[in-house]
Amino acid sequence: MAAAPGPLHLDGRPFLKGHGTQNDFLLLPDVEGTLELGADAVRRLCDRRQGLGADGVLRVVPAALDPGAPAQDSSAEPARWFMDHRNADGSTAEMCGNGIRLFGRYLVRAGLAPAGPMRVLTRGGVKDLDVEPGDGDVTVDMGPAEVGGALQVDGEPGQAVSMGNPHAVLAVPSVADLGELHPDRTDLNVEYVEDVGPTHIRMRVHERGVGETRSCGTGACAAVVASSLRTGTARGTAYVVDVPGGRLRVTWEQDGRVSMTGPAVLVAEGVLTADLLS
Amino acid sequence: MAAAPGPLHLDGRPFLKGHGTQNDFLLLPDVEGTLELGADAVRRLCDRRQGLGADGVLRVVPAALDPGAPAQDSSAEPARWFMDHRNADGSTAEMCGNGIRLFGRYLVRAGLAPAGPMRVLTRGGVKDLDVEPGDGDVTVDMGPAEVGGALQVDGEPGQAVSMGNPHAVLAVPSVADLGELHPDRTDLNVEYVEDVGPTHIRMRVHERGVGETRSCGTGACAAVVASSLRTGTARGTAYVVDVPGGRLRVTWEQDGRVSMTGPAVLVAEGVLTADLLS
Repeated sequence: MAAAPGPLHLDGRPFLKGHGTQNDFLLLPDVEGTLELGADAVRRLCDRRQGLGADGVLRVVPAALDPGAPAQDSSAEPARWFMDHRNADGSTAEMCGNGIRLFGRYLVRAGLAPAGPMRVLTRGGVKDLDVEPGDGDVTVDMGPAEVGGALQVDGEPGQAVSMGNPHAVLAVPSVADLGELHPDRTDLNVEYVEDVGPTHIRMRVHERGVGETRSCGTGACAAVVASSLRTGTARGTAYVVDVPGGRLRVTWEQDGRVSMTGPAVLVAEGVLTADLLS
Repeated sequence: MAAAPGPLHLDGRPFLKGHGTQNDFLLLPDVEGTLELGADAVRRLCDRRQGLGADGVLRVVPAALDPGAPAQDSSAEPARWFMDHRNADGSTAEMCGNGIRLFGRYLVRAGLAPAGPMRVLTRGGVKDLDVEPGDGDVTVDMGPAEVGGALQVDGEPGQAVSMGNPHAVLAVPSVADLGELHPDRTDLNVEYVEDVGPTHIRMRVHERGVGETRSCGTGACAAVVASSLRTGTARGTAYVVDVPGGRLRVTWEQDGRVSMTGPAVLVAEGVLTADLLS
């Protein structure tokens, strides 16, 4: 299929599609830093019927080649790769715990970075990853948790936790019995958490501005922080967190930071055609 | 990205993604007739977050190489290609007016058939197509319309039309004002039709077993048959039918058959990876 030069320079561009606990992304490799990616193109790419469909786009670009990448601390070794994350509506995004696992997996698969520890620049700062070889899990340092106060959602008591973004965590007897989620607090992400075992929880999440999703990385972290506080579990204990999209492992570390481990699955790779934006 | 041998023989398989008036499909070329495509694989491929995502899969296989292809009338020239159409739930499908346009476009793009008239075998029999060159429209002979009687949907009068599958067509002042569609007849496909001009209608459709969709090929045909009867428009008159997913042109021919013309858009092509079914 010969592709004539198309609008927005997307024809013939390589892409990959993948997901982390069913939060799905299109990866657009841009190793030479030449791709100008407008909001229109992102919206069309993410359209699930007219495009390829995804929750967002992750452009893979060397930090040094993108004038739009955030500045890095000159005293530390700089991150080589910038995760240019866009939401499906075309807006820019700061950081996503599910997306960055996929980003790290891609770097290793494509031979752009060795497996193991690596640093990735995001609009939310430099993040530390650890990518297992092959199709193993990826661990992300999600940063420090800030414990807030008690609050109420739908008249029930909850725990406020910030992971850079605000969360309210509610303990419930059964997440399956909740039906559709319509919390009365829409200024927060709301996690409903059911105890499965002493360090094993099941969670559903209502993300502010979005609704219920299959997975939320910062929500899983907030849920483990709140559950640890509620049950008196020691810092440094690894929790299993089952979300509708799969399984994550989350540890609230001694230093107050939260690490999250989970799958990253690349399902296809190919090229975009000129028809895409017609 | 080296792909290790994966389950169900899908790793490294080529695919294309495209849509016809936003009814979207994954095309799986199988020119050698070697692909065994199970229901599990179809469901995973069509999963919009864990897979690539689509309303269905169209396997492209030579009719002579697929023991599962329907028998053809030996007195006519046989169709060379069989459209092995699967629904997103893994079940087999007979025929889709939006999908077959994409199938014809692919055959021409891939050099498997010249542009112009062609015949394609489906589980609903051999269908006649006419594929314009380049990214032009594709015309499909949708077969004969059978005019049924009057019926009622939600207490409003409607017209029954069969296009092989059953339809009820209702004339309404404005499809935009209808809100969510919840017809009391779920044994039929229900089309709500608004007059835009003498031979121009706007339509929304509730497909039985599915709900509202962006487009329904047989529904557009039924809507034009019912509109022609209602307004006394002569056979052989070309209608414009605007559906939420785009624009179709439909003609109820002198011989009682219905022809439908519309777009077919291929947006990407690539290969599946071993991770897909992990």
